[in-house]
Amino acid sequence: MEQDTRVTWRNRLHNTIYESNTIAGRIFDIALLILIILSIVVVMLDSIQIYRQRYGQIFYMMEWYFTILFTVEYILRLISIKKPLRYVVSFFGVIDLLAILPSYLSVFVIVGAQSLLVLRALRLLRIFRIFKLTHFLTEIDFLKTAISSSMKKITVFMLVVLFTVIILGSVMYLVENGENGFASIPDSIYWAIVTITTVGYGDIAPVTPLGKFIASIMMFIGYGIIAVPTGIVTNEMVNATRARKHGHEACPGCGREGHDRDAVHCKYCGALL
Amino acid sequence: MEQDTRVTWRNRLHNTIYESNTIAGRIFDIALLILIILSIVVVMLDSIQIYRQRYGQIFYMMEWYFTILFTVEYILRLISIKKPLRYVVSFFGVIDLLAILPSYLSVFVIVGAQSLLVLRALRLLRIFRIFKLTHFLTEIDFLKTAISSSMKKITVFMLVVLFTVIILGSVMYLVENGENGFASIPDSIYWAIVTITTVGYGDIAPVTPLGKFIASIMMFIGYGIIAVPTGIVTNEMVNATRARKHGHEACPGCGREGHDRDAVHCKYCGALL
Amino acid sequence: MEQDTRVTWRNRLHNTIYESNTIAGRIFDIALLILIILSIVVVMLDSIQIYRQRYGQIFYMMEWYFTILFTVEYILRLISIKKPLRYVVSFFGVIDLLAILPSYLSVFVIVGAQSLLVLRALRLLRIFRIFKLTHFLTEIDFLKTAISSSMKKITVFMLVVLFTVIILGSVMYLVENGENGFASIPDSIYWAIVTITTVGYGDIAPVTPLGKFIASIMMFIGYGIIAVPTGIVTNEMVNATRARKHGHEACPGCGREGHDRDAVHCKYCGALL
Amino acid sequence: MEQDTRVTWRNRLHNTIYESNTIAGRIFDIALLILIILSIVVVMLDSIQIYRQRYGQIFYMMEWYFTILFTVEYILRLISIKKPLRYVVSFFGVIDLLAILPSYLSVFVIVGAQSLLVLRALRLLRIFRIFKLTHFLTEIDFLKTAISSSMKKITVFMLVVLFTVIILGSVMYLVENGENGFASIPDSIYWAIVTITTVGYGDIAPVTPLGKFIASIMMFIGYGIIAVPTGIVTNEMVNATRARKHGHEACPGCGREGHDRDAVHCKYCGALL
Repeated sequence: MEQDTRVTWRNRLHNTIYESNTIAGRIFDIALLILIILSIVVVMLDSIQIYRQRYGQIFYMMEWYFTILFTVEYILRLISIKKPLRYVVSFFGVIDLLAILPSYLSVFVIVGAQSLLVLRALRLLRIFRIFKLTHFLTEIDFLKTAISSSMKKITVFMLVVLFTVIILGSVMYLVENGENGFASIPDSIYWAIVTITTVGYGDIAPVTPLGKFIASIMMFIGYGIIAVPTGIVTNEMVNATRARKHGHEACPGCGREGHDRDAVHCKYCGALL
Repeated sequence: MEQDTRVTWRNRLHNTIYESNTIAGRIFDIALLILIILSIVVVMLDSIQIYRQRYGQIFYMMEWYFTILFTVEYILRLISIKKPLRYVVSFFGVIDLLAILPSYLSVFVIVGAQSLLVLRALRLLRIFRIFKLTHFLTEIDFLKTAISSSMKKITVFMLVVLFTVIILGSVMYLVENGENGFASIPDSIYWAIVTITTVGYGDIAPVTPLGKFIASIMMFIGYGIIAVPTGIVTNEMVNATRARKHGHEACPGCGREGHDRDAVHCKYCGALL
Repeated sequence: MEQDTRVTWRNRLHNTIYESNTIAGRIFDIALLILIILSIVVVMLDSIQIYRQRYGQIFYMMEWYFTILFTVEYILRLISIKKPLRYVVSFFGVIDLLAILPSYLSVFVIVGAQSLLVLRALRLLRIFRIFKLTHFLTEIDFLKTAISSSMKKITVFMLVVLFTVIILGSVMYLVENGENGFASIPDSIYWAIVTITTVGYGDIAPVTPLGKFIASIMMFIGYGIIAVPTGIVTNEMVNATRARKHGHEACPGCGREGHDRDAVHCKYCGALL
Repeated sequence: MEQDTRVTWRNRLHNTIYESNTIAGRIFDIALLILIILSIVVVMLDSIQIYRQRYGQIFYMMEWYFTILFTVEYILRLISIKKPLRYVVSFFGVIDLLAILPSYLSVFVIVGAQSLLVLRALRLLRIFRIFKLTHFLTEIDFLKTAISSSMKKITVFMLVVLFTVIILGSVMYLVENGENGFASIPDSIYWAIVTITTVGYGDIAPVTPLGKFIASIMMFIGYGIIAVPTGIVTNEMVNATRARKHGHEACPGCGREGHDRDAVHCKYCGALL
């Protein structure tokens, strides 16, 4: 009997935390969403010198407040699930742990010249709480499909672009004679990437006529070939849509799928559909 | 009888103002169009210091001239319509009111140190007269359709980009050690947006080798994923065109689909649709 | 008899100049192509101070050499065609005249402080000789079709972008308080165009936090909506290709065209195709 | 008998070097891949002043180590193939020779003021070892197809863009009066390319109001017409996919086309294809 009550209690907790079809579940979700966004905003504001000097104490307190709430959430998730270990090692489990760990670790870091960078890094890790938002991002699948089906082709394309920037960057290093910001081959390649992707900071820019000529050619290349990944992705999407449209019904004769919508006979065995 | 005359008079006024199929209506439209553009040009020129010093007096007079004309237009629209209140609260009604309000309000603002910004804002509000041009923009519907049908997917895409710039921006803040313009996390995120959208002002640019490396990766990401919204919008447009072309009704004779919208007979068996 | 010889002579001249299927015609074409490119290169080099000081005299002589050759070409075109007046007022006739006029006009301009700009402009007009290259550009039609069929939609799109930059530019003028390069509304609109088209010179860049925030939103808008013209043009091209594929044969029954390739019966009258 | 052993030995060597289906072949491939990347990284690091001063001696030694290994590879490729001369003059043969030649040549260059640039160029040639990676790039074919089928149209498009930048660049040279970085027509054309491709370094930017106005128009043009190459490439890809899917053979039974490539029976009448 007691067992039963506990199960019911755990079930209700589970529904509240993991589902959003009950009122309590919706409230939990919205509260969590606000909490995550608030905690990220605090990390951001804390990084602005003028605000830290003025409100640093408040930010510090809020930080611990968030940490405690996220810890409670983590524990609730652990006890309301049947296989807690599976949650701990899952993507969401790691993310939820990473959201609270930095604060606790920062206590144990003895402040010294060496550990200042560690503290900075720990403080920054808190921004990764943004990954907790993936709890709410369920619509992202179409993006994954679109990108993963085009991934191989886009990777090959990107390798070709990488080739181009390495070679043209090296040529520019020779042409600009190591001056005007083209101080080394890696710097020249960085410039080539800035140019071919049409970002164009202008922190490094060619000065010699030949350099400007090569740069112009690179810009034309970048402007022309941006069409290629676009073409790849669009093509995949159009095909995916068309595939969804053409029926997935199986042939009554041979059981195979993939017939056009206007098909009357099975294209494999000739049976009437 | 008098009632009748008034109705006719109001009808003719209504046709002139709200329709453009009469000569008077066309003249009214063109005059309004010129007036709106002129008044916007005056606001723009008035913002250039050298012109304001020289022609400020003329601009001021013209401004009141425009205000009076737009006020007359507003009153005419009010009296020539059957349900004036509905117009007042409609999108166009609010726009037309906003086009004249700032000038009248500026009279009541007592000039002081505090109210200077208010005056500036009021003056600027006049540029929103440009929205009056939406009276003429009726062809914009296809754009609305294209964007609204892709809106959900593009929003998800934009959220992913937002994710990316927040995380990579924060990493750059750590890598560049808060220097070289990466003074805070918000500043670093601003830089990340400037980079991933390939705008690339160059007001903030990475200086450390690791920073340049991460920036290069961001540029590649930005260059590669611009294909995604393009693919989404193109796909929606191609589908919309196809849907408009092909009806989805089946032929009563042979049951096949895929007929053009203007088809009278089935293209396969010749039966009447 | 003399008449006959002259006609033959004129015919051969006409074939040489206007056609390229004879050997003489091909030689004429290539010679003209080289001449045009050479004359443009000379105009360009002449604009570089250091070259003009050193080789100015040579450039001047070459310029007259080109002018005389183009004049001979113009006269030959005139006498080898049956209706010279029609050529004179045609697009190519105007272009060919503009290619020689500046040199002759520059002789009549009395050198004075006032006429220096006129001289400069005349010198520059010579670069418009590049339009003579349109004699050779016959493959450009597909581009015209692609652009003209999308023109209306792209114009509406561009008007919406213009709206956006005028409004957001004006807001930025207020936000940045007329400082940091946002000196006037036209300047702010120029900045907004530089930003939304992802050009991003960086000569004007927001400094205030609110300004940076609005700029970030503009960049996202620019990055997202570049998909719209791409979608429009791609859609038109896909449709054009599909239309070319679907047959243009007329129905034997009713004479109407536009049937699908797989159509067996006319979709209008039901007759067998 | 001896002959036989040698053939077998050569066969196994050939398999190891030219194929990757044996374990020895895979190891050879991976070792070569690592070697190429390492040697490129060394060339890059060697170009950074601070690293060269510190580790120049080590880089020099590694360079010779790589040269010897690539020479061994070159000789092995020569002796393990039946027609060595054909390999020597092939694309891969030239690439493999260029990968080792610079090091040997640098020995024969007598160090002098004149030969320093030659030495620099020789050193840089080593970066072209990256072309050896094309041994591994076999998936690039789809890119070649996509680009080559669109090449003609994209070339015409690029010529039109070149036209535009030459004319608008020259106009800007006149408008900005040869100042503000618009020092000559080639410089102005360089600026026009930087602008129309949306790179936007900002090293040259218009200052006069008219210049800014023309620049704004150029940006709009660049923003609008980037849709054209995208449309071309996407269209080619969609057509290529469709052509691969649909055979163009007519059904022997009913004469209709549009069957899938894997179809055995007509989808309309069920007849055997």
